[in-house]
Amino acid sequence: MTVYLVGAGPGDPDLLTLRAAKLLATAPVVVHDRLVSPEILQLINPRARCIDVGKTPGLSHSQSWINELLVELAGHYDSVVRLKGGDPFVFGRGGEEYEALSRENVNVEVVPGISSAFAAPLLAGVPVTHRGLSHGVTVVPGPAMSGAGVDFRALANADVTLVVLMGVQRRAEIASQLREGGLASSTPVAIIERASTPNQRTLRCRLDELGGIDVSAPAVLVIGAGAALALNGALDSIVSLGV
Amino acid sequence: MTVYLVGAGPGDPDLLTLRAAKLLATAPVVVHDRLVSPEILQLINPRARCIDVGKTPGLSHSQSWINELLVELAGHYDSVVRLKGGDPFVFGRGGEEYEALSRENVNVEVVPGISSAFAAPLLAGVPVTHRGLSHGVTVVPGPAMSGAGVDFRALANADVTLVVLMGVQRRAEIASQLREGGLASSTPVAIIERASTPNQRTLRCRLDELGGIDVSAPAVLVIGAGAALALNGALDSIVSLGV
Repeated sequence: MTVYLVGAGPGDPDLLTLRAAKLLATAPVVVHDRLVSPEILQLINPRARCIDVGKTPGLSHSQSWINELLVELAGHYDSVVRLKGGDPFVFGRGGEEYEALSRENVNVEVVPGISSAFAAPLLAGVPVTHRGLSHGVTVVPGPAMSGAGVDFRALANADVTLVVLMGVQRRAEIASQLREGGLASSTPVAIIERASTPNQRTLRCRLDELGGIDVSAPAVLVIGAGAALALNGALDSIVSLGV
Repeated sequence: MTVYLVGAGPGDPDLLTLRAAKLLATAPVVVHDRLVSPEILQLINPRARCIDVGKTPGLSHSQSWINELLVELAGHYDSVVRLKGGDPFVFGRGGEEYEALSRENVNVEVVPGISSAFAAPLLAGVPVTHRGLSHGVTVVPGPAMSGAGVDFRALANADVTLVVLMGVQRRAEIASQLREGGLASSTPVAIIERASTPNQRTLRCRLDELGGIDVSAPAVLVIGAGAALALNGALDSIVSLGV
């Protein structure tokens, strides 16, 4: 009885790890999120039991319900795959599932996945770190994870690229908080919609234009000097990656 | 003539993407770094030309030499794989190679890899984001990328986990800058050596103890409340991941 917390990556099945692909092909039961793409679900062993615990707005299983389900399944199956979009520990709440399972003495193994925090910018030709432009990268979720949301004023740092996941809805507020924190209105922003899928699209604007840009979720916001880089000369070939 | 900038992930071949594994098995020429593990190099097509441009201290090819080599190879081969440790755009200087190739009208495709910035903490049971403990994560390199190094005082933020790559040598200075910036002396630190390899080892200490800890590179430093999390109840099973 081992539960594998597995990252599915950003959506393109070719961006699964070898380890994840092997587990999907062999596990007798797979519990997956809404964020996992249909192309990846097709790689699950057709004889496996496949349980969708996707948190659709308005019709959601609570995290504790999912935790209990995993513990129960671990009692019935030799191996259980818990498949999560992106990376299980980067805003994936994998840590909470890990804790809940460990408390019940269930063996847990984690398999990292490609996080869209890094992959979305990369696939759009936007390096999150670039010599002379950005010392590092900060990754935060747009919505509040618990109680108060992220205070973006404290994250305004012109030397560090800011990547915001799930930030489409709050984009106007994020932009104004960053400007209050001292980031220039002209700071370049790249918005990458549906990264790694055939419908990937990249939009670019200035920070003070972000609130007025028409974007549809899921999208990743990249804010900082690197977002202006012209690495998208070959953007079309990148967008078609793995398609 | 396409050059593929491919991320090799943290070292375990099972953490390669399907896309990377396919390219290694088929490309006629592979140009790789020192950071790519021997187990991964074994997956390269045995008939392929394999060029090591690893930047060994004291005996290094310059970045511009590598850029020129890639452009030249692109003129001779239909496809060239440029294999980099981790993710090509996260401190991998993939952006610079991308620019150099695009300038010469070489077609470039990028294949993201698992960055040890996220994978090392995950494999050690340290979630970089965790409900109630950390709003987000900042990733920076320890050494200077260009000119002045990162000023860690500006990165002291108790709400955000800090991940430092290649920071072993400067660890005492990093710790004191973070404390000067306002981070508490008691802030938990996790140090993950040789992540994803059979010799992975995790050490834990307080921020004010970091300078005195005996660590060997390569290692990833994780600084913040999440570093204290007891997700390592099942640490042994994690360490053996994919081995």
